[in-house]
Amino acid sequence: MALSLGFIVNSLGGELKGSPTQQVQRLAPLQSAGPDDISFLSHARYRSQLETSQAGAVILTPDMQQLAISRPACILTDNPYLYFSRLTRLWREQHPLPARPRVHPSAVVDPQARIAPDAVIGPLCVVEAGAEIGSGTVLHSRVTVGHGCRIGQRCIVHAGVVIGADGFGFAQHEGRWEKIEQLGAVRIGDDVEIGANTCIDRGALEDTVIEDGVKLDNLIQIGHNVHVGAHTAMAGCVGVAGSAKIGAHCTIGGGAVVLGHLSLVDGVHVSAASVVTRSILKPGQYTGMFPLDENSQWEKNAASLKQLSRMRDRVRQLEQQIQTLQKEQP
Amino acid sequence: MALSLGFIVNSLGGELKGSPTQQVQRLAPLQSAGPDDISFLSHARYRSQLETSQAGAVILTPDMQQLAISRPACILTDNPYLYFSRLTRLWREQHPLPARPRVHPSAVVDPQARIAPDAVIGPLCVVEAGAEIGSGTVLHSRVTVGHGCRIGQRCIVHAGVVIGADGFGFAQHEGRWEKIEQLGAVRIGDDVEIGANTCIDRGALEDTVIEDGVKLDNLIQIGHNVHVGAHTAMAGCVGVAGSAKIGAHCTIGGGAVVLGHLSLVDGVHVSAASVVTRSILKPGQYTGMFPLDENSQWEKNAASLKQLSRMRDRVRQLEQQIQTLQKEQP
Amino acid sequence: MALSLGFIVNSLGGELKGSPTQQVQRLAPLQSAGPDDISFLSHARYRSQLETSQAGAVILTPDMQQLAISRPACILTDNPYLYFSRLTRLWREQHPLPARPRVHPSAVVDPQARIAPDAVIGPLCVVEAGAEIGSGTVLHSRVTVGHGCRIGQRCIVHAGVVIGADGFGFAQHEGRWEKIEQLGAVRIGDDVEIGANTCIDRGALEDTVIEDGVKLDNLIQIGHNVHVGAHTAMAGCVGVAGSAKIGAHCTIGGGAVVLGHLSLVDGVHVSAASVVTRSILKPGQYTGMFPLDENSQWEKNAASLKQLSRMRDRVRQLEQQIQTLQKEQP
Repeated sequence: MALSLGFIVNSLGGELKGSPTQQVQRLAPLQSAGPDDISFLSHARYRSQLETSQAGAVILTPDMQQLAISRPACILTDNPYLYFSRLTRLWREQHPLPARPRVHPSAVVDPQARIAPDAVIGPLCVVEAGAEIGSGTVLHSRVTVGHGCRIGQRCIVHAGVVIGADGFGFAQHEGRWEKIEQLGAVRIGDDVEIGANTCIDRGALEDTVIEDGVKLDNLIQIGHNVHVGAHTAMAGCVGVAGSAKIGAHCTIGGGAVVLGHLSLVDGVHVSAASVVTRSILKPGQYTGMFPLDENSQWEKNAASLKQLSRMRDRVRQLEQQIQTLQKEQP
Repeated sequence: MALSLGFIVNSLGGELKGSPTQQVQRLAPLQSAGPDDISFLSHARYRSQLETSQAGAVILTPDMQQLAISRPACILTDNPYLYFSRLTRLWREQHPLPARPRVHPSAVVDPQARIAPDAVIGPLCVVEAGAEIGSGTVLHSRVTVGHGCRIGQRCIVHAGVVIGADGFGFAQHEGRWEKIEQLGAVRIGDDVEIGANTCIDRGALEDTVIEDGVKLDNLIQIGHNVHVGAHTAMAGCVGVAGSAKIGAHCTIGGGAVVLGHLSLVDGVHVSAASVVTRSILKPGQYTGMFPLDENSQWEKNAASLKQLSRMRDRVRQLEQQIQTLQKEQP
Repeated sequence: MALSLGFIVNSLGGELKGSPTQQVQRLAPLQSAGPDDISFLSHARYRSQLETSQAGAVILTPDMQQLAISRPACILTDNPYLYFSRLTRLWREQHPLPARPRVHPSAVVDPQARIAPDAVIGPLCVVEAGAEIGSGTVLHSRVTVGHGCRIGQRCIVHAGVVIGADGFGFAQHEGRWEKIEQLGAVRIGDDVEIGANTCIDRGALEDTVIEDGVKLDNLIQIGHNVHVGAHTAMAGCVGVAGSAKIGAHCTIGGGAVVLGHLSLVDGVHVSAASVVTRSILKPGQYTGMFPLDENSQWEKNAASLKQLSRMRDRVRQLEQQIQTLQKEQP
């Protein structure tokens, strides 16, 4: 099941320094790679890992070549991380997982759903009436796609995902919540990947929209009528409330929360665990997270924080008193 | 599949200004509604959206009627949002989803579970022994209801929900965790809605209780022996730790956390992403969330925050020094 | 279905004060226990609950014995909470749940998966090729174990868990995300419990590892190549990003986030909702969470917080001005 270095550079490009017949048994990180393995150096800051690595072959940039000179082989490329990502896909192609049925017999697919001939519906999935699954898309096990929801081409949907549950919509009346029927659906573009147990709710009147190339990690909540722009990525446990509009090429860090009805322009990057409480009109990195501290320190600072606005008043008063004193100074 | 305005006001009330035979093809937001659609103005602050809307009919309050004067039709009602919510339900009634079997053949229902004759058990659900599902309740696909758990009438449980997994209970002994068997169950009232992939754990000794009319969004965690009072609503990604007691008519914002063994009285509103670390004995709105900022600004403020308690000491010292100076002033 | 006190102390030890033939109908908390029930006093701070409790028998430490003197019976033991946890297990043994098939017929188990003869695979589970499930391990309903993932002995995996979905790995190229195939798997030790709808991703090249005795609550996200040390426990809604290394005997509070590529030594305790942004090299309790406040107070303090670094400058300036004034003082 090994690949030769020659086969790798023939498939992916790059300049091979070493023997094309050298075999690679495994892709491995620098720290644990052995003489039969190939690894990669994605950034100069990891060079010390390279120095002590046993890797028999390494992927790196031409200007780092000196670091690999004592090894049997290296592959030179301008973007080693990208090269590595392509090597993982080549590796998977050459070591395919067991074939699976196109539509697993245990899946519950409504006769009125439209499944592309080469889409894969995994075990125990539910695809409801009017749903559409595009060409090359794979639903792993136990995915639900609700009625009328559409998924584009070449998407990957991991286990436990729920697409098209009702959005959270109620009108209050005499202390009770009256349900607003969710009449929209979910529309997902091409090349989208959706992580395990993530939920994307259907829209209230119109559709919730996930554009092309979006990548969502696990356990993310996307509320009704959210719009996520193309090639935006969100890490695990993010929550996006209803009708938020997130631009293209954004990144949202793990555990962050975006409140409802906000707009984020393209190219906004929200740090992990930050809460977006207002629209963001300028690209950039945004953060709001209490810094971690030893608990005893945190307790003191948190107590002071609850006095912060009063402290600000006291500083202002001090400034006035100083001014008075300075004037009275002979 | 259209509805006439006459049919709508006959069903839901309200005063129609316009022709009862005018047909409505779709419910739509003001911004995207066309001449064949009906929309609504829930609040005066959206009046500019109404001005530019193409909606052929609009639901609004009598005092806003002037804003709709140029339209073919409007419906006057004191609470347009409530009216709209009822219109979505009327719409769904008139445009029903495909009929589904009462108990889907793929569901795994224990013969010792009690399912009301008109409850619906969706595809690939699991209902264990001794569980009870009340009249008119719908379990969407892939819901698990554990042994002995009871769900009331007219509840809606979305895909992937887990009711009655073991609570998280362990006793520590010599550095290891010994399991506390969870001998309680979950008891859910009437008219409760539970969002996709939400989890409600069974109690340790007694039951976890969700009272009537509670609405839980997606991906919420309810720990063992939690008690949620009637008509309380929680947005997505909330976590409520074990034995917390949340009152009636509360709202908990998305991503908020309520620690264990706390009590919140009726009418408490917790803002999104806030952490409740102590009991709340007074109704009101409570918040604790680091304000979002540009990352560079945040870094400066977060660094200062870690010195906050020292800064407070410095301010106190300054105040004393000023006092001394003021006294010494001639 | 009752147990006698004699049977209990014969099984679990402890010193019985009272009649061994006294029957116990139920395990119950002090507040709700009746004369036929047994309860426990885990800590002196709950003694007032004991005073008003109707419990017919109570488990407590010898030095608390006086508090139970008026009751029909008590059991003395050094660690009542541990005793109680063992009593719950004894109770479950004596009141077993209905027998279930070893591999439920609705489960989808690949012929190339290896299931120990006494493991239990619940309804609608998916176990893929090459997966291994150890002796005595129970998968409750609707669990997915991906190809090549291994679970040790005596583990409990609750409904909706996803083990071995792809890690979230992409290389950026010309504004798009190129997938990094996730070639590793997940390796879970013995005596691990995993809560409902929790996700543990497979590693990119090597395995994600959960060591022996780890307890994970519901809705937790464990990223690829995370390593969780033995006997560490995490409460609900925690997110651990890729390649984080968490030591043994740690506890992570509910809703906390651990960023990627960090190391936490053994014995680190992270408070609920705190964000770990740097490695922690010293055991102890760590916290970072905005204190909850009434919303109006919070608004003032949060506004001041955004000026905090400027306020620090102002305090510094005040200090200098005071010094100058003090020097100039006659």
